[in-house]
Amino acid sequence: MEKNRLEAFSDGVIAIIITIMVLELKAPHEASFAALRPLLPVFLSYVLSYVYVGIYWNNHHHLFHSTRRVSAGILWANLHLLFWLSLFPFATAWIGENHVASTPTATYGVILLMAGVAYNILQRAIIAQQGPDSLLARALGSDWKGKLSPVMCLIAIPVAFASPWLVNGIYTFVVVLWFIPDRRIERAIVKRPE
Amino acid sequence: MEKNRLEAFSDGVIAIIITIMVLELKAPHEASFAALRPLLPVFLSYVLSYVYVGIYWNNHHHLFHSTRRVSAGILWANLHLLFWLSLFPFATAWIGENHVASTPTATYGVILLMAGVAYNILQRAIIAQQGPDSLLARALGSDWKGKLSPVMCLIAIPVAFASPWLVNGIYTFVVVLWFIPDRRIERAIVKRPE
Amino acid sequence: MEKNRLEAFSDGVIAIIITIMVLELKAPHEASFAALRPLLPVFLSYVLSYVYVGIYWNNHHHLFHSTRRVSAGILWANLHLLFWLSLFPFATAWIGENHVASTPTATYGVILLMAGVAYNILQRAIIAQQGPDSLLARALGSDWKGKLSPVMCLIAIPVAFASPWLVNGIYTFVVVLWFIPDRRIERAIVKRPE
Amino acid sequence: MEKNRLEAFSDGVIAIIITIMVLELKAPHEASFAALRPLLPVFLSYVLSYVYVGIYWNNHHHLFHSTRRVSAGILWANLHLLFWLSLFPFATAWIGENHVASTPTATYGVILLMAGVAYNILQRAIIAQQGPDSLLARALGSDWKGKLSPVMCLIAIPVAFASPWLVNGIYTFVVVLWFIPDRRIERAIVKRPE
Repeated sequence: MEKNRLEAFSDGVIAIIITIMVLELKAPHEASFAALRPLLPVFLSYVLSYVYVGIYWNNHHHLFHSTRRVSAGILWANLHLLFWLSLFPFATAWIGENHVASTPTATYGVILLMAGVAYNILQRAIIAQQGPDSLLARALGSDWKGKLSPVMCLIAIPVAFASPWLVNGIYTFVVVLWFIPDRRIERAIVKRPE
Repeated sequence: MEKNRLEAFSDGVIAIIITIMVLELKAPHEASFAALRPLLPVFLSYVLSYVYVGIYWNNHHHLFHSTRRVSAGILWANLHLLFWLSLFPFATAWIGENHVASTPTATYGVILLMAGVAYNILQRAIIAQQGPDSLLARALGSDWKGKLSPVMCLIAIPVAFASPWLVNGIYTFVVVLWFIPDRRIERAIVKRPE
Repeated sequence: MEKNRLEAFSDGVIAIIITIMVLELKAPHEASFAALRPLLPVFLSYVLSYVYVGIYWNNHHHLFHSTRRVSAGILWANLHLLFWLSLFPFATAWIGENHVASTPTATYGVILLMAGVAYNILQRAIIAQQGPDSLLARALGSDWKGKLSPVMCLIAIPVAFASPWLVNGIYTFVVVLWFIPDRRIERAIVKRPE
Repeated sequence: MEKNRLEAFSDGVIAIIITIMVLELKAPHEASFAALRPLLPVFLSYVLSYVYVGIYWNNHHHLFHSTRRVSAGILWANLHLLFWLSLFPFATAWIGENHVASTPTATYGVILLMAGVAYNILQRAIIAQQGPDSLLARALGSDWKGKLSPVMCLIAIPVAFASPWLVNGIYTFVVVLWFIPDRRIERAIVKRPE
């Protein structure tokens, strides 16, 4: 029961984050397609952030699927993750408004990095409670994607000052990398003798 | 359990979409009925979008009622549908602000079309998982409404440049067509031997 | 299960309505108590609307407590009620911005009236499905409060043009009248042999 | 069942409160780190409020964990608590916009105090229903934290006019004090013979 409420609250926060990002897409005052053109970077940064937040929701879903009980540490690790996700709309709006400039792109990378770190802390908090032989610990295994993503963000942050478009390409690559949700957990669950 | 969380998340996103559209109805600075008049197209486009989003929620509800388990494909097909629904407030605001002009009306048609396509993809993803003999596959049958709506949107998009008011009439007609929720699924469920 | 989702969706919409009303309370640019004074009518209209929406949530909660299954008619009657509730933030902002003027107060009365009518339609839709001997039908009995409130709103609308403050007093009186949630349903449930 | 819906509604409202506070972090028009500097007090007040609302959600979660049935009094005590929490975004924005001035800091203290009072009323309403020998009543015991916090807010309000930064230090101290969620209830639940 405790877990259900943590999931419901996280779903609520993530649903709002994903939806308020679209508020940056302000309806232009003119009724022409030309008036839509300046909105294109805003739209693209919205799509990128939408997919990122979608991936987090998806993985959050898998993470708690294998969790039974929730400790105080997990509650706060989860609120910590939601905090960094709540800064996505700000960074998305800043990238969009400045047509993919260096500083907003680097800031976006910092927030991506911190969200990745927070997700790892949450994962560890859950494994700490379940024990190293748990379903989740075995399912994650070496977790190369979870380790590669923060490294790529760390590389991306300085590179953003040289070429923000390249860095947005890196972000898109990380998205593609994560697009397929974590089948390892799914597989382990299927194998589990109930 | 997985399904419940997908439903809860979708409910959250749709609830926010339906509610932030009303934020476009900005309280006028003057306290007279005359000050309400410029809000009329904003109000009418809000009503139209409210009913559209309501229909999607309704059908989403029926679609998942007959679904037991949720695959990664269904999760992403659902996020894809929510993405297009999340653009409704933008298109609604644009129509309202420009008093039903051609380009915003055509843009609205594109978003309606894409939401219809996304709904069809979601339906197919669910049937693909359940098999062609499933309850949902049988319930949908020929699905003429699901096929007619995108065709009408495709017609509406170019016509919007000739007569935006006519096209808003087409949108209203499609709404009326869908107003009665999909009784086919309801009937099939009633017939199902439990 | 169907009912749970209708409740969850309604909870989401009502939670957002209640929360976006507070967005009208814009932080003043100056850091003095004097800067708070112009916000007083905005604050008072927020309190009034908060209590109204709270009453609706409360009664909605009781109404569906005694409901088992949800028909298509109930789904749409519920969306119709949520539509009128979604206009509360608009009317609240308009009253607050114009320091309790006549036209916004009358408009608020129209929205209150329509929400009351929508609530009655929803109640009838539920009773129609459950039959006249149902728990809800017996619990409601003569329903004098449900009949008195729309009458008071109907009186309030024209009077608003003579004295908006008196009419806001009437709204406050109706709030007090409804403040105690519908114990009839609670009592009938307690009496019900399980 | 009743309790679940109260929890879901509260989760929704708290999720929205926590998320709309971030809307005050408006993306600057310039793409430089210098443009972020004026946002620092806004960001710090967001972090403080985020943690406060997180603590309230956490404690709300524990409070209702030990509750079985929900009376009309509990419903309204809960709506009363949510009302004061809904004013957090306003006070947070006001502190942030004025770079930690006296009057906004004192106002924040008033809202913190009222939320604390509302939480105590809710706690009493639940204990009143459960009886003085209930799990919750025993778990709370002397409740020194629940009594110390309002006292510290009462001290903070006048001191804000002398030194707003000191008072924000007091708020941060209260946060640290509450950071560890109420283990008393957790412990009592563990001890409870099921």
